[in-house]
Amino acid sequence: MSSTYGENLKLSIFGQSHGAAIGMTLDGIPAGLPVDLEQLQAFLNRRAPGQNDYSTPRREEDRPEFLSGLADGFTCGAPLAAIIRNTNTRSGDYANLKDCPRPGHADYTAQIKYGGFQDPAGGGHFSGRLTAPLCIAGGLCKQWLEAKGIRIGAHIAAIAGVEDDAFDPMEPQLEKVGTDFPVLNPEAGAAMRAAVSEARMALDSVGGIVECAVTGLPAGLGEPMFGGVEGRIAQIVYGIPAVKGVEFGMGFEAARLRGSENNDPFRMENGKVVTSTNHCGGILGGITNGMPLLFRAAIKPTPSISQPQQSVSLSRGENQELVVKGRHDPCIVPRAVPVVEAAAAIAIFDLLLQTGWK
Amino acid sequence: MSSTYGENLKLSIFGQSHGAAIGMTLDGIPAGLPVDLEQLQAFLNRRAPGQNDYSTPRREEDRPEFLSGLADGFTCGAPLAAIIRNTNTRSGDYANLKDCPRPGHADYTAQIKYGGFQDPAGGGHFSGRLTAPLCIAGGLCKQWLEAKGIRIGAHIAAIAGVEDDAFDPMEPQLEKVGTDFPVLNPEAGAAMRAAVSEARMALDSVGGIVECAVTGLPAGLGEPMFGGVEGRIAQIVYGIPAVKGVEFGMGFEAARLRGSENNDPFRMENGKVVTSTNHCGGILGGITNGMPLLFRAAIKPTPSISQPQQSVSLSRGENQELVVKGRHDPCIVPRAVPVVEAAAAIAIFDLLLQTGWK
Amino acid sequence: MSSTYGENLKLSIFGQSHGAAIGMTLDGIPAGLPVDLEQLQAFLNRRAPGQNDYSTPRREEDRPEFLSGLADGFTCGAPLAAIIRNTNTRSGDYANLKDCPRPGHADYTAQIKYGGFQDPAGGGHFSGRLTAPLCIAGGLCKQWLEAKGIRIGAHIAAIAGVEDDAFDPMEPQLEKVGTDFPVLNPEAGAAMRAAVSEARMALDSVGGIVECAVTGLPAGLGEPMFGGVEGRIAQIVYGIPAVKGVEFGMGFEAARLRGSENNDPFRMENGKVVTSTNHCGGILGGITNGMPLLFRAAIKPTPSISQPQQSVSLSRGENQELVVKGRHDPCIVPRAVPVVEAAAAIAIFDLLLQTGWK
Amino acid sequence: MSSTYGENLKLSIFGQSHGAAIGMTLDGIPAGLPVDLEQLQAFLNRRAPGQNDYSTPRREEDRPEFLSGLADGFTCGAPLAAIIRNTNTRSGDYANLKDCPRPGHADYTAQIKYGGFQDPAGGGHFSGRLTAPLCIAGGLCKQWLEAKGIRIGAHIAAIAGVEDDAFDPMEPQLEKVGTDFPVLNPEAGAAMRAAVSEARMALDSVGGIVECAVTGLPAGLGEPMFGGVEGRIAQIVYGIPAVKGVEFGMGFEAARLRGSENNDPFRMENGKVVTSTNHCGGILGGITNGMPLLFRAAIKPTPSISQPQQSVSLSRGENQELVVKGRHDPCIVPRAVPVVEAAAAIAIFDLLLQTGWK
Repeated sequence: MSSTYGENLKLSIFGQSHGAAIGMTLDGIPAGLPVDLEQLQAFLNRRAPGQNDYSTPRREEDRPEFLSGLADGFTCGAPLAAIIRNTNTRSGDYANLKDCPRPGHADYTAQIKYGGFQDPAGGGHFSGRLTAPLCIAGGLCKQWLEAKGIRIGAHIAAIAGVEDDAFDPMEPQLEKVGTDFPVLNPEAGAAMRAAVSEARMALDSVGGIVECAVTGLPAGLGEPMFGGVEGRIAQIVYGIPAVKGVEFGMGFEAARLRGSENNDPFRMENGKVVTSTNHCGGILGGITNGMPLLFRAAIKPTPSISQPQQSVSLSRGENQELVVKGRHDPCIVPRAVPVVEAAAAIAIFDLLLQTGWK
Repeated sequence: MSSTYGENLKLSIFGQSHGAAIGMTLDGIPAGLPVDLEQLQAFLNRRAPGQNDYSTPRREEDRPEFLSGLADGFTCGAPLAAIIRNTNTRSGDYANLKDCPRPGHADYTAQIKYGGFQDPAGGGHFSGRLTAPLCIAGGLCKQWLEAKGIRIGAHIAAIAGVEDDAFDPMEPQLEKVGTDFPVLNPEAGAAMRAAVSEARMALDSVGGIVECAVTGLPAGLGEPMFGGVEGRIAQIVYGIPAVKGVEFGMGFEAARLRGSENNDPFRMENGKVVTSTNHCGGILGGITNGMPLLFRAAIKPTPSISQPQQSVSLSRGENQELVVKGRHDPCIVPRAVPVVEAAAAIAIFDLLLQTGWK
Repeated sequence: MSSTYGENLKLSIFGQSHGAAIGMTLDGIPAGLPVDLEQLQAFLNRRAPGQNDYSTPRREEDRPEFLSGLADGFTCGAPLAAIIRNTNTRSGDYANLKDCPRPGHADYTAQIKYGGFQDPAGGGHFSGRLTAPLCIAGGLCKQWLEAKGIRIGAHIAAIAGVEDDAFDPMEPQLEKVGTDFPVLNPEAGAAMRAAVSEARMALDSVGGIVECAVTGLPAGLGEPMFGGVEGRIAQIVYGIPAVKGVEFGMGFEAARLRGSENNDPFRMENGKVVTSTNHCGGILGGITNGMPLLFRAAIKPTPSISQPQQSVSLSRGENQELVVKGRHDPCIVPRAVPVVEAAAAIAIFDLLLQTGWK
Repeated sequence: MSSTYGENLKLSIFGQSHGAAIGMTLDGIPAGLPVDLEQLQAFLNRRAPGQNDYSTPRREEDRPEFLSGLADGFTCGAPLAAIIRNTNTRSGDYANLKDCPRPGHADYTAQIKYGGFQDPAGGGHFSGRLTAPLCIAGGLCKQWLEAKGIRIGAHIAAIAGVEDDAFDPMEPQLEKVGTDFPVLNPEAGAAMRAAVSEARMALDSVGGIVECAVTGLPAGLGEPMFGGVEGRIAQIVYGIPAVKGVEFGMGFEAARLRGSENNDPFRMENGKVVTSTNHCGGILGGITNGMPLLFRAAIKPTPSISQPQQSVSLSRGENQELVVKGRHDPCIVPRAVPVVEAAAAIAIFDLLLQTGWK
């Protein structure tokens, strides 16, 4: 099913980039969970566009209106529903996209799938704007997880090949991530921003990698085989536009190692079973082992660039040069950081519900 | 849900490594599809253990018995059910594993999750042996897809850092993959086998990468957001034990590129819309674009190694050295190749059912 | 999962009776289906309160606002989302219901389930008002089914023991159902209205039965066992508050018959296989046989009555007399008629999607 | 999805009446639940054919073999899988059914749905024989529920219009149900058996009603709307072949009552909230209220009768008289009693899992 996620909760995301509103419903949430709307807004603002030099100047409030599911500041058992009105739209920019698909975008595949009935404005339902309702759901789950001592944080691991320091897999430094620009190493951050500026000057864009860590997780979450934590997280993270790779722990690097290097030895520490290293990213057999969970998501460079590109006219069946108009981030990686956190929070909360959240 | 996969079909896998039998049920398959049991057996044999120098000497027939779903050589609309009896088991090898978990295995997480009631013998339900019923389901889906001109093939992209040639993303050379050792470049294959032998001598193991390609896919398969092809394939591929990373097209490499490099230009070719490159791996916005689909899965080194390792005694709550007995592959990557194909075949067939398979 | 329905489509209903808005999302709908908003409004008006002497005087517009899923009057592939603002609420009426539950209502069970965090105003998420978004989804499905020649109609089969004529199971007279008061026999309708008035005078309420028929269905819809048409329809019809029984064809009456009486003989008619009677209600083995589908739903009498009733004070743990204030229908059966049609339309549309709606 | 049931557990049933075996997989069951195989066998024997004068003389052991999910007499976390071999088959009896469908059976609808590829022998996957694996799953759930003080019992409420006493809805007399013939009133039982004998003599069959009660349920089980207890139970009960009606509490009778008669007053009893009557069958707003749960299922008369019946030849497109051969129960209601209990047990266990079974 398309824009629906969850085994124990049911998240449904709706909206088109330039439609009346975007929003989400979130069913299956226990009653009595507190909701801090200010904290949620602060989380959403991390994703919001137009905040600084590296993102699109389009400016929307991204202030959710809750229509259902709350009573007196707590969840009430009814499905949560929240919407964000689309106020700042410039549909005229996208008039020709139905005929001349943007390379790297869903324009062409949407045309084939929906037979020309899709809403092309701003990418329609495929727009990165749909990550805003994902962040509403994820921001709430994040609050509820934090109240249980489960913390989720992410940073930019790389942009355009410039690498940040990595999280310490034994003790991820969530509190060290910059609030202005989410990196661990400010120097790396400065180099990344320079790379983004350079790309913008060149009418181009750059991609990157987001690394995410979850601490405070109990051991025993997840199911064997297709219900494993890796698969559940990967499914929702691949729901974020532009993600082309997801890896856990050592990930692809593990493929180069020997078993004696990659295996995490067990040992007792203060009466608790821990591992001496954390190459597995906190997951063995699809199930959490109580160590920090770590994963990385590869974000491709924003496909909307201002350079002329080669495309086709679908109606005329011939090649055509395309110049994409409109406002576009030369790099969406910084804004993707809270989105990855949101996705992880939803997946983890869903897993915890299975154990009978109390 | 744990060992269940699919939106339109419902695959359920059951069994423990040393239990009475392993098997699968596959519901939601149209009636009237032919089943070639010999071809299926040939496919299963590619995964079977004990065939050569680089895999475990344990030898099982892996010959499935179909209990349901077939009539006169065709699917009959009833759920398919098939089992493989476990004949060659040596449970004694695993007696101490419930107390002293193997590093890198699910022994510890199973203990926590199942409170000591899990079946530890051979890894129980977490054993790689459970990929045999996955291959039954996938081998059937592969047959049915091939009858529609959709071909799936995989090869070893790397073992222990030794790299095979990559598939040509525009025209993957499925037919060039070796049947004895599944690589494109026999010299790379020889080097890989040497690396495996070396690891075995060192009582160690090695990991690798499997690259998989699907050709002949129609454009328009997949759904936006959480129903995208990447997420669906990732979920099932992460169901294969030892997979720690999944990437599509350029994957993590795309994070280093600029948009102008990574975007695949469109052009007309013989009246058809194609892309000039295939960095996206055949998927845009979660939906196939008609180009070959390509993905890679990272396989960690086999955690069962014969070297002494550091573990703990759960009952005594103290550190303990562990020597894993039993027969184990020093490298499971070659046997994982058909398993990855099977997983891809199931995911693709599930997606095709949504469009009303005829 | 709670307020979510569907195998191939995903319907999610949200809202509380006196919250900001009620609404629905409907995912999995093909693109390119036309939407006639006027026709939808006419359908919703059949359910709307305050239209006549037998229903509550509360008056709301019930005019849905579509937020997503439409472009230029057609479905565009994005999930449909529509809301209805709640404008005419009187929350004060319900202040004491959290402590003193109304007999026959969900007040008590909601208190237990949600631990006192539920929204009691107007029944919160359990209110009959939530059938309005069900009618948005169902009204759309009904339009799309009608375009394929599949017609759905219902009538009041009984109120307070006064019985309408039954549909002819071989050729249900959908067009004969009254538009003012949905019965086949106007005299029965007059007697029903008299019974409702009588109950209102007595500060009481009455229940009834809705009979629903679907014509023009292809044979072969539905799945064996738990995917049968009866089970799928029953699940959604039981989602309508106050439904306590669902039966198909002869239903409970079949339990009195002999096989020779109940079996529907087959015969050829104009080259087509038909049955000579239709005791099975168009379903054999859970699968449609091409004859009209018929089912009946029992609606209990409205639990909100103005007579004093015996209840308890949950806070004080003692018995307490309750007088329910607020405006309530003495009989909701007439308004339930389009809701049952809506539920049937959604279930049938969901089944048709499985066959690859074109 | 067809032969799959459950939100939190996943039951999958497979097999054809005259295939190699029938069976089930049951995923999502907690580890550490004890399994009493003797008690399970005793439960299965209640459903088994050939035990007495009122059922078919076909005799099968119906002795399940567990292939997965058990270790040392307890569930081990792996999916449960069990099969029953089909040993006593007479396929020749059914040779002509593919061309000449039996009235009241799924022969015709299976032919349309599966395009002639269905297995017609013994009704294939539509056979009542498939209720045996349902009873394996349900028998296990029943054991686990009983260990929590939740008891499930059913009796024949009616056969051929002869009515048994009803359960006391406040205190269902589960222990009074006869073990030889499952009725409360032995005289009614004798009259029922006479009616069955009479029907057999007349080469005919009779239907009936099964009433089922569940005691010891906690309040608060179930979800609003489509996740309500009624809908969940109805969906699985309609999975039992021949069920054509399901009602809860007063069911269809409630449609005749006034609100003041039907509402169940609340009162305090020993510090606990109870209702003074139980017309709602223990369910308000789809959620259990802690009173006994009661429902009734209408079973149509066995369609297989030995009288000549009118059918058609599908190949020749003309009317044809049919005489059904083979062995058939003149009344399946007694054997349906444990099947209804099994279905209820599965649905209730599934609901309890949602609350985090401990």
